[in-house]
Amino acid sequence: MKHLITCKELNATDIEAIFAHASEFKRMKGLTPVSQKQFLNQTVSLIFVESSTRTRMSFEIASLNLGARVVQLFPEISSLNKGETLEDTVLDLYAMGCRYFVIRHPQSGIFDALLNIKKPGLKYINAGDGDREHPSQALLDAFTLIEKFGTLKDLRICILGDVLRSRVAKSNAIVLSRLGAKISVSGPKPLLPSKSDLPEVEIFESPDDAVRDVDVVMGLRTQMERGGTTFKPDSSYLDTYGVSKMRLKLAKKDAWVMHPGPVQRNVDIDSEIIDGPNSLILKQIENGVFVRMAIMAHMGLEMV
Amino acid sequence: MKHLITCKELNATDIEAIFAHASEFKRMKGLTPVSQKQFLNQTVSLIFVESSTRTRMSFEIASLNLGARVVQLFPEISSLNKGETLEDTVLDLYAMGCRYFVIRHPQSGIFDALLNIKKPGLKYINAGDGDREHPSQALLDAFTLIEKFGTLKDLRICILGDVLRSRVAKSNAIVLSRLGAKISVSGPKPLLPSKSDLPEVEIFESPDDAVRDVDVVMGLRTQMERGGTTFKPDSSYLDTYGVSKMRLKLAKKDAWVMHPGPVQRNVDIDSEIIDGPNSLILKQIENGVFVRMAIMAHMGLEMV
Amino acid sequence: MKHLITCKELNATDIEAIFAHASEFKRMKGLTPVSQKQFLNQTVSLIFVESSTRTRMSFEIASLNLGARVVQLFPEISSLNKGETLEDTVLDLYAMGCRYFVIRHPQSGIFDALLNIKKPGLKYINAGDGDREHPSQALLDAFTLIEKFGTLKDLRICILGDVLRSRVAKSNAIVLSRLGAKISVSGPKPLLPSKSDLPEVEIFESPDDAVRDVDVVMGLRTQMERGGTTFKPDSSYLDTYGVSKMRLKLAKKDAWVMHPGPVQRNVDIDSEIIDGPNSLILKQIENGVFVRMAIMAHMGLEMV
Repeated sequence: MKHLITCKELNATDIEAIFAHASEFKRMKGLTPVSQKQFLNQTVSLIFVESSTRTRMSFEIASLNLGARVVQLFPEISSLNKGETLEDTVLDLYAMGCRYFVIRHPQSGIFDALLNIKKPGLKYINAGDGDREHPSQALLDAFTLIEKFGTLKDLRICILGDVLRSRVAKSNAIVLSRLGAKISVSGPKPLLPSKSDLPEVEIFESPDDAVRDVDVVMGLRTQMERGGTTFKPDSSYLDTYGVSKMRLKLAKKDAWVMHPGPVQRNVDIDSEIIDGPNSLILKQIENGVFVRMAIMAHMGLEMV
Repeated sequence: MKHLITCKELNATDIEAIFAHASEFKRMKGLTPVSQKQFLNQTVSLIFVESSTRTRMSFEIASLNLGARVVQLFPEISSLNKGETLEDTVLDLYAMGCRYFVIRHPQSGIFDALLNIKKPGLKYINAGDGDREHPSQALLDAFTLIEKFGTLKDLRICILGDVLRSRVAKSNAIVLSRLGAKISVSGPKPLLPSKSDLPEVEIFESPDDAVRDVDVVMGLRTQMERGGTTFKPDSSYLDTYGVSKMRLKLAKKDAWVMHPGPVQRNVDIDSEIIDGPNSLILKQIENGVFVRMAIMAHMGLEMV
Repeated sequence: MKHLITCKELNATDIEAIFAHASEFKRMKGLTPVSQKQFLNQTVSLIFVESSTRTRMSFEIASLNLGARVVQLFPEISSLNKGETLEDTVLDLYAMGCRYFVIRHPQSGIFDALLNIKKPGLKYINAGDGDREHPSQALLDAFTLIEKFGTLKDLRICILGDVLRSRVAKSNAIVLSRLGAKISVSGPKPLLPSKSDLPEVEIFESPDDAVRDVDVVMGLRTQMERGGTTFKPDSSYLDTYGVSKMRLKLAKKDAWVMHPGPVQRNVDIDSEIIDGPNSLILKQIENGVFVRMAIMAHMGLEMV
């Protein structure tokens, strides 16, 4: 595995190897003695051209756990605002010794241009490109579900909300369906994807129909910053489209609830459900560090 | 000591233990061999929702001296601007493995909400909450004075300036008086606290009266960013309310001068006094690193 | 060598020692075992009051390679915006244990004021002060050329573009001429320096004349953010003043091309030349890390 840009390229062997690594890192609580840190003296560049807490911090801590140093490029105070291209920035940092680039960018498909750079050992990890993909999120979601259910074979998962503009939904559709899960999605009509956008999922106009008898319900935040529609969640959103207590009763008994964060409490999901016993939300975040360590370790082991 | 949120909770045993740690760290100049660093593999989160150099850097260097890794959340470029609550951010970072949270926030009493989070090993350090408290500053001020005077018993300390809106004054009033000092305060009338705000101190309308025969004079910056009054220091401020050469003569011979910074030169304090032989200002900053190491070490030793 | 503020103070012995260090660091690819890291427990402060990627990251990675910790002061979120002077900020950080200060600032000659601070072991490195100097850039440029040519004796180097406002041009003029090179400059008339600005160089009104038969051509970015003139590069800039293919043919066969970055592609230099076999641009960046390690190591060895 050279890069992690889209889940389409992930084969079952890669996924299995990543999850095995992640389990081992979790068993050790992310800690290893300095002498065994695999990434000692490696430099990981975090380039986040969009706001982020969770994902940026998770990659930062994952990198530090592996022994790497982390350098961060804040676009607001960097030469990206002097008209330099992202490709040139990557080339510059590569020349300084960075090999791992974790990049979040508002432009879907930004990696197409970056892949024109051919340099030995250069590794990209997509931390979210526009509304296209967010593969490490899908991997940590799948890892978290396998931890609960043992397998994703025939598991029924419903994704509710702004599916159209969600890179999380797109990456999850690919990974979860590849591992055997059946996925339904629903949300406000202007935020529903077309069948060709998300061929792996079943699209429902009624959120109630989408949720019926599923094992897992995943909420999503309405990403107004992406534009493309004027739809705005109001005070009725939770009841009409969100993970409300009423709607959750239509799912299987004790269905698990997920959300990639940041959560809008009482909009995307009922606040009590978030903090309740069936919420996997903090488990997703905890596992995120181990899965991201595993992604990097898996890439690293191919480097030699 | 589980958290350090308000000086009211600090008992004499805690203060003594912190100062003993700080002296030891100072003797070693903050340096320890890697193998003895107590916080190796620990992650300290700095969440500064208000501008800061001194305090943020001091906690950063203190954490690094102890062997910890430091992650920083810059609110301008984080999910706090996607509408996430600070509680959820803390829960997220805890799930990623962070246990120590050093937080500065413009809202007085922000920790009331944060204390609802019950997690094993979770530790808060208040680095300033609105106009309420700034406990590590009070501890480093007390440590610096004990270094000079041996004891605070019957020491007379005057705080001059924007006492009303100063969390430093509030925390210092509690700590210094608990250790035996007698505190007088004065400043512009709209910036004077009421007796109930600061029960530990004697409030003077005349700065000259407040300063007379004290051992230590502490200046404060006028914190216009806090609002609540239209008072603005003008060119006569130093002479009328500040630590001027003339006023300092009313204090004891060779009285020491302090300021929590950032200093407005020739407004809060005469510039020559700041750089003069009786200024403790840089000593406060130097000791700040050791006292903050000691606070964390003292909390850490209770963790097990 | 106490500080590195202007190239005028650099003598041949310093330059030779720095280059010998840099070669050794390059041979080791910047990596040393933890136990041999010379700057272990040292804290380097990066204070960049102007946007930067390349230089800031280069100093950050150089410092980390040497084993130092790096603390960064972002003026947007620091006490510099509460009216504190840069001198007081340096004094504060020194009191916290920082000894190395890498400073970029829009004000030419900012170090004049900073040099009033007399503290043992305090070291300044100028990472660019207004339009005055950028010494580490000149050293890495000279190192890169010596790597290619063995010596700068009688080498002919042409600098094209906004020479007037370029601190890179000023520092390079001093260092390269001291090492024996002959320098010609040219650019748009409003951006040409006067003879007294740059006594070491020959100034040409015609870029073609400046380039004729040189061994090396260095392009520069037009630094509109500096003001002072209304000249703006348009679509004809490359052909009229820049490093175009046509103009490069006037230089010696296989002349090398340099640029301090960030590059405006197809404005400063033809994009194909940037990525072509005769471009030293990424080599400059690669060497920058080793030369900056060497600058710090050279300063450090005098500390004891």
